[in-house]
Amino acid sequence: METRRVYLDHNATTPLHPEVKKEMIEAMEMFGNPSSMHAFGREAHANIEHARQSVAGFIGAHEDELVFVGSGSEANNTVLSLFACASNLCIPGFKARQTIITSRIEHPCVLETSQCLAHRGTTVKLLDVDRYGRIDIDQLKEYLSDDVGLVSVMTANNEIGTLQDISEIGRLAHENGSLMHTDAVQAFGKMPLDVDELGVDFLTMSAHKIYGPKGIGALYVRKGTPYCPFIRGGHQEKGRRAGTENTLGIMGLAKAVEMRALEMEDEARRFAAMKEVLVKGIEERIDNALFNGHPELSMPNTVNVSFPGAEGEAILLYLDLAGIAVSTGSACASGSLDPSHVLLATGSSAERAHGSIRISMGRETTMEEIEYVLDVLPGVISRIRSMSTAYIKGEEHVAAK
Amino acid sequence: METRRVYLDHNATTPLHPEVKKEMIEAMEMFGNPSSMHAFGREAHANIEHARQSVAGFIGAHEDELVFVGSGSEANNTVLSLFACASNLCIPGFKARQTIITSRIEHPCVLETSQCLAHRGTTVKLLDVDRYGRIDIDQLKEYLSDDVGLVSVMTANNEIGTLQDISEIGRLAHENGSLMHTDAVQAFGKMPLDVDELGVDFLTMSAHKIYGPKGIGALYVRKGTPYCPFIRGGHQEKGRRAGTENTLGIMGLAKAVEMRALEMEDEARRFAAMKEVLVKGIEERIDNALFNGHPELSMPNTVNVSFPGAEGEAILLYLDLAGIAVSTGSACASGSLDPSHVLLATGSSAERAHGSIRISMGRETTMEEIEYVLDVLPGVISRIRSMSTAYIKGEEHVAAK
Ligand SMILES: Cc1ncc(COP(=O)(O)O)c(C=O)c1O
Ligand SMILES: Cc1ncc(COP(=O)(O)O)c(C=O)c1O
Repeated sequence: METRRVYLDHNATTPLHPEVKKEMIEAMEMFGNPSSMHAFGREAHANIEHARQSVAGFIGAHEDELVFVGSGSEANNTVLSLFACASNLCIPGFKARQTIITSRIEHPCVLETSQCLAHRGTTVKLLDVDRYGRIDIDQLKEYLSDDVGLVSVMTANNEIGTLQDISEIGRLAHENGSLMHTDAVQAFGKMPLDVDELGVDFLTMSAHKIYGPKGIGALYVRKGTPYCPFIRGGHQEKGRRAGTENTLGIMGLAKAVEMRALEMEDEARRFAAMKEVLVKGIEERIDNALFNGHPELSMPNTVNVSFPGAEGEAILLYLDLAGIAVSTGSACASGSLDPSHVLLATGSSAERAHGSIRISMGRETTMEEIEYVLDVLPGVISRIRSMSTAYIKGEEHVAAK
Repeated sequence: METRRVYLDHNATTPLHPEVKKEMIEAMEMFGNPSSMHAFGREAHANIEHARQSVAGFIGAHEDELVFVGSGSEANNTVLSLFACASNLCIPGFKARQTIITSRIEHPCVLETSQCLAHRGTTVKLLDVDRYGRIDIDQLKEYLSDDVGLVSVMTANNEIGTLQDISEIGRLAHENGSLMHTDAVQAFGKMPLDVDELGVDFLTMSAHKIYGPKGIGALYVRKGTPYCPFIRGGHQEKGRRAGTENTLGIMGLAKAVEMRALEMEDEARRFAAMKEVLVKGIEERIDNALFNGHPELSMPNTVNVSFPGAEGEAILLYLDLAGIAVSTGSACASGSLDPSHVLLATGSSAERAHGSIRISMGRETTMEEIEYVLDVLPGVISRIRSMSTAYIKGEEHVAAK
């Protein structure tokens, strides 16, 4: 008997889209170095410039504003590291603006890089979030002052799916003369994004969350924005990112974007229907299930739910035995046994945070798969809870309300 | 009539090996995030750990000592940036060792990053080279002192092919209590390399120079060596490099390495034979051809030659019309009209440096292709020279000797 395999961890990563696969296999013949002047190089150059147009166009940007990088993490490091740049010798206007405002629920590649900058003299202010994971706009207003160089707030949270009002945050940042960055790795390709509507100066993208290859991402940099390369040396990307271009990855990213433009809208509707069934099903069939994230202002593909008395890791492993792949918070945090910093920031108890799983749907997810999860999950939870002596039904439920 | 296409720019980049292509196409089905705990993730994790063993084994390293990164440029930036690391708060032993020694002929990703560090307070000492591009060991001894944290010298130069005595340089660095790094991007996969024989603490590799994909590289970090991640956030690569792993790229790199182990030796013999024919042929058929780089201590696939009175770019474009792809120095420097910093460091006049081309052979290069170059090149040179009024035969020849 073959075990059934149901992949519901699309916020961690996605399979390649069949069209992306096809594109990349074809592109394997094109091997020139885009920096070379001969025919092999010019062919590669033309192809990546075409890809740049596609990706830029998808977010309402000009092609010159798009820098291809190796990952979402690199893009985020690039933006934050501007503030380590020889105390901004390269960016004269920002010498007096050595404060960064970001939020407590950012991805570790933003939070840890900020911490590192803090050791080097940058002031880092972390925005609190409410119990749904929305940042505190009043606190942002309070934090904004003459010395703030950058505001960095993610568009959508990878663990709980909560969306932020980036346009409003960007407006406030700009009013204050600060630059605005959004890590849009999760939102990119799941919903329409326009850099002008969002009012951002930097926007981070990654291919592997949208059925493109891993190891390629892009950073939008608004024309005229102070900038310093993070990886230095070499004239690639107009001097904004050194290293021979990942041509195959870039072609894959552009094709993935092209497919997103075609599929994104219908898919969001499908997700909404499946999410409703999933949430209702869990509520009906499992006692004391606590949903995390905002009930409406959230990515339609993401359901994050805590089952007090059941450890997230145990749930994950039991579901895995049934062929269902979900996660406990973010994949990057796996290996660490700390409770999710995102859930803690929303005011969750450590127990609630420990008992959470994230179910994230993708383009191939079917209603039938959701029903399968609803068949399997209740048994898994009651089995784990019955083994856990610590769990006293109802107690955490009350505490968490 | 189809134009013939002869690719002789393998130091810029290489086509994918057919076996690498096959491996990558198969690996496209494996999409899990290696950090995920479920079956999809575990499969990806097992595959990249297997790849890590292969690549590490190829250079005599332990698998724990290998960090996958996005490019050779990123690897070099990672090593150098240790010295910007909060004035080495993270690396206590190196607070007093804020000097880096490197050479004038390094790749721009080493030289520009060093320049940037110099702005931040690091002292950078550049080693001179002789007319063959070999570094001055006496000068190294003179430069080595208590405050030197790192010596970084490339194994083989990308433009002229000259090899350095890394074992000796490493020995001197270690004697002085300094760390030793070598950028082995060009040597890796062209000749046997063993990190213990070389006596290095860091060694930089890139896949796309050895018939692997672009956008993936590796950094060897000797066990126990002070280290700080360059891209931060996320537990990937044991906390040494954040960002979802480029699984496809890693599989491609490992397969490329596997093929190198099989093909490298025979190929070197073939290169030596072709190089002899090429050099002799140029000497016999073209007046006043000045070869750059060391006559023996050089990569067997690389011929760099200057034709005073003919601009390298013009030669390149005429050859391109005949379907032959070569380069003027490094691909990264293309777009800039400055003469090669490598040739200038060897004492070349600006004219000699401007008149140089690099012919770099690869695994599919045939003797017949070399003969084709020898048929085409003399006509190209005399045509360009006859158009150039500035060229007075013999004058530069004498000057350069
Ligand atoms: C000697 C040397 N170092 C570093 C690099 C950079 O490697 P990558 O293109 O993978 O960034 C190259 C080639 O581009 C090179 O020849
Ligand atoms: C919100 C967010 N930012 C950044 C990243 C990092 O992207 P990448 O894996 O391409 O480095 C991720 C996913 O891993 C993410 O979910």
